[in-house]
Amino acid sequence: MLTGKNYIGYSLSSDGTTSFNTINPKTNQTNSTLFYEATTDEVNQAVSKAHGAFAAYQNYSGTQKSSFLTAIAGELLQLGDTLIEQVMTETGLGYERVVAERGRTLWQLQMFADLLLDGSWVDATIDTAIPDRKPIPKPDLRKMLVPLGPIVVFGASNFPLAYSTAGGDTVAALAAGCPVIVKSHPMHAGVSELVAGAVIRAAQQTGMPDGIFSHLNSQNYTVGNQLLKHPQVKAVGFTGSVAGGTSLMKLAAERPEPIPVFAEMGSINPVVLMPEALHKGGAEIAKTYAQSITLGSGQFCTNPGLLLGIAGTDLTAFAKSLADEILKTEALCMLHPAIAHQFDQGKKTMQNQLAVEQVVSYEHEHRSNYGKPLVLTVKGATFLHNTKLHQEVFGPFSLLVQCADLNELTRVITQLEGQLTGTFMATEKELSTHFSIAEALQNRVGRLIFNGVPTGVEVCPSMQHGGPFPASSDSRFTAVGIHSIKRWVRPISFQNWPNDLLPDALKNANPLQIERLVNNKRTSETIKKTS
Amino acid sequence: MLTGKNYIGYSLSSDGTTSFNTINPKTNQTNSTLFYEATTDEVNQAVSKAHGAFAAYQNYSGTQKSSFLTAIAGELLQLGDTLIEQVMTETGLGYERVVAERGRTLWQLQMFADLLLDGSWVDATIDTAIPDRKPIPKPDLRKMLVPLGPIVVFGASNFPLAYSTAGGDTVAALAAGCPVIVKSHPMHAGVSELVAGAVIRAAQQTGMPDGIFSHLNSQNYTVGNQLLKHPQVKAVGFTGSVAGGTSLMKLAAERPEPIPVFAEMGSINPVVLMPEALHKGGAEIAKTYAQSITLGSGQFCTNPGLLLGIAGTDLTAFAKSLADEILKTEALCMLHPAIAHQFDQGKKTMQNQLAVEQVVSYEHEHRSNYGKPLVLTVKGATFLHNTKLHQEVFGPFSLLVQCADLNELTRVITQLEGQLTGTFMATEKELSTHFSIAEALQNRVGRLIFNGVPTGVEVCPSMQHGGPFPASSDSRFTAVGIHSIKRWVRPISFQNWPNDLLPDALKNANPLQIERLVNNKRTSETIKKTS
Repeated sequence: MLTGKNYIGYSLSSDGTTSFNTINPKTNQTNSTLFYEATTDEVNQAVSKAHGAFAAYQNYSGTQKSSFLTAIAGELLQLGDTLIEQVMTETGLGYERVVAERGRTLWQLQMFADLLLDGSWVDATIDTAIPDRKPIPKPDLRKMLVPLGPIVVFGASNFPLAYSTAGGDTVAALAAGCPVIVKSHPMHAGVSELVAGAVIRAAQQTGMPDGIFSHLNSQNYTVGNQLLKHPQVKAVGFTGSVAGGTSLMKLAAERPEPIPVFAEMGSINPVVLMPEALHKGGAEIAKTYAQSITLGSGQFCTNPGLLLGIAGTDLTAFAKSLADEILKTEALCMLHPAIAHQFDQGKKTMQNQLAVEQVVSYEHEHRSNYGKPLVLTVKGATFLHNTKLHQEVFGPFSLLVQCADLNELTRVITQLEGQLTGTFMATEKELSTHFSIAEALQNRVGRLIFNGVPTGVEVCPSMQHGGPFPASSDSRFTAVGIHSIKRWVRPISFQNWPNDLLPDALKNANPLQIERLVNNKRTSETIKKTS
Repeated sequence: MLTGKNYIGYSLSSDGTTSFNTINPKTNQTNSTLFYEATTDEVNQAVSKAHGAFAAYQNYSGTQKSSFLTAIAGELLQLGDTLIEQVMTETGLGYERVVAERGRTLWQLQMFADLLLDGSWVDATIDTAIPDRKPIPKPDLRKMLVPLGPIVVFGASNFPLAYSTAGGDTVAALAAGCPVIVKSHPMHAGVSELVAGAVIRAAQQTGMPDGIFSHLNSQNYTVGNQLLKHPQVKAVGFTGSVAGGTSLMKLAAERPEPIPVFAEMGSINPVVLMPEALHKGGAEIAKTYAQSITLGSGQFCTNPGLLLGIAGTDLTAFAKSLADEILKTEALCMLHPAIAHQFDQGKKTMQNQLAVEQVVSYEHEHRSNYGKPLVLTVKGATFLHNTKLHQEVFGPFSLLVQCADLNELTRVITQLEGQLTGTFMATEKELSTHFSIAEALQNRVGRLIFNGVPTGVEVCPSMQHGGPFPASSDSRFTAVGIHSIKRWVRPISFQNWPNDLLPDALKNANPLQIERLVNNKRTSETIKKTS
């Protein structure tokens, strides 16, 4: 079923001579399909087709675009267990997890399909003319959001469906009216091809222009860099490491025409363990966090990699419980030998830091690529002086920082880099009494959680997934939820434009029946002709 | 009345030994006040104070912030003719223009003061919990916009009030909840000090924290660069040249923590002269555009620097009329000898390009620093092959491009860099028949104008002032209107946060009575307590 070829719009293509395979991390065996690296010509063809498709696609109605997204969901579902098994074969993820992730992917498609049917997301803003205003007449001005142009998406290794080929970035961009070129993740190139095929079939069925979607394989940086430097590419979506994201940000900033990169990168997701909460329920918190740290072998951008508490008997007891609970968990296969190797390296780097002690090291697992959880501990003062300890170790790892007091804990928070999330395990009274700690945390994160775990990113309008750098490249946007569409659009104003030639969203008659801001009032009513 | 000193929060300071004067461009004489360059220490003090002020200010209520902005307007008005005359002395702008610009500045302050009183701008988005959802409970999630932190503003030379010290960037940032450090424009440092004094007095009267606003003088790049590199600065606003803006963008991208720069830069604001419109009303259009090109000595970012038509008798007649009308205008003093000099250099560069001919050169003015308008013309094919002709000449200059046909005209449009505006002078039938030209224009601009002039930027919610690079650094934002506040804020989510400890905007009781998106419905109602 797999071809290993690139999709240049609707055409399969394999002009290149270099190829690669994916690996089954569970068996440590090479999978059979050969994937052909896209050539420079293929890169240029894909962008050129996307540029051409944009001219048409930017004017497609919400209904048309919505039917496209719904068709993608249908085609994905149609792939059935072929897709599920391919994910398992290339990532080592378990059946239930993969099915759940597919559910999330379908839900995201549906959510954007609904958003397009409603249509109000374009933020139509209208100020009608005041011809007799003194000293000069006020013109008629109407503003709405329009798509940026062709977008390049680099999918995530850890969410082969929900944040990869037809994942959050792609779907938001297609919904916005932007053609998408996916640089497939080399670790799950087969999954990516299956999903790309689904997108292509859906595009053909619903009358989308050729070039609306392309899919290029590459195991190294060449293809990605060529895409990023292409003058007709207008923005980039990326989910991955800080190193990868920042290198794309730099390239994008150095272009003759700099373009926005939305990169969702690393995070250690600090968790503040307040004394009273720990005293009352330390054992329960330990149980919850042992699960959260090891969930999916810790391969979540929201993995709790930093636990902050106040040194003392309760924290010592918590550490003991956490160790016990982690030893009870089942080790899980990591996504790829390279990721398993990086995890081992990351753990070693942390273990080699001065004054670091072990809380628990999980050793009863001897299969290759299985992530063995590790929790280390360190004093607050040590943590403050060694920023290597602030770095993410991607996998089931966490660092317990034992602060001398709440002042030191606050200092630790203020010195952290930007984070996706920050969690407060506390009684309500503690949160209220020590609210300045929560405020310090608020300035470092995109999402604050009270008495919960950061893993689990709800897909809904009120979700902010993105935080101060390096959690993401631009904290003003989110990678999850309907508002993630704002990354791929810009406002445009029409001044004294003939009503009949305005986009439907801005016409007096409001044919789309959307909600608009008209003369500073939110309404879905029509505008009476002013003549 | 002027001290020449820097405001480090509420304190006047002049630790430096370097100083400079401003110039009266009308008399070409040096003004008497000595302005002290801020030192590195003063820069650090200002940022440190801003950082400290942010901790408090980010939690100030909309009412408090609104009263601050209203007080700034009051203090500016209180300065009366002292301010107006200082502007005239440092910029050469005429009395009426300065009074009008003050009016615009006051209106902007009022507009943001109103926005804060209403409070709905924080985009409160709430999804309540579903504890019994399967397979896992849905948490309570609530999102709103929060300020980024201390902002640095570099004001515009050409709008010494409306887009400088207490202009659009500053007011939007203060409204957002961000402290502001203004690097004063060295050409109108005296105006800037007067305005800074007004802001400081308003801040003191309304109980704002010391550090909410600082004001630093500098004639060179050192102070600006130091500000931009300071780790506690979180974003930058800039209005000025492409060279200036892109150098700030580069610096910001190279920081260990990259920060957003919103730079509103150059634009040549193409105007498409369609054949029928030209045939019917060429003489009238020439009159209108002679005014628009020379308005304020052409020193607007929306100055029409590029006129695109189809070669033929009507365009020749238009050129003749335009020449006649421009010769009837009055030459105006330019903002500064350096700007007048750059204008002369820019004109020479254009005149020296191959195959460029003169439409009109205004020579009957012999006072220093007075801008002599120039209109050149060139064939479409020449324009397409020489990108030097695509560059902005800041001042009363325009280039008339005579295209062979509408296809060539469309090619010219697609090869333009990003622009603030694009104008269509056409009959409705022409616009409708040749809509693809308007679409091509739409992809290059932030605002489309039908049968008007691009000069004149209405301050209202539906205004988009900003366009594809290099018109601005990020086309997803506007520099004018209430939505310009979005440059300085980011969303944050609160998950399962205790209701009493949520920001007022997100509380169940909706104490601010703002409009919110609750479970995907827009409402200003309260939320009934769940559980």
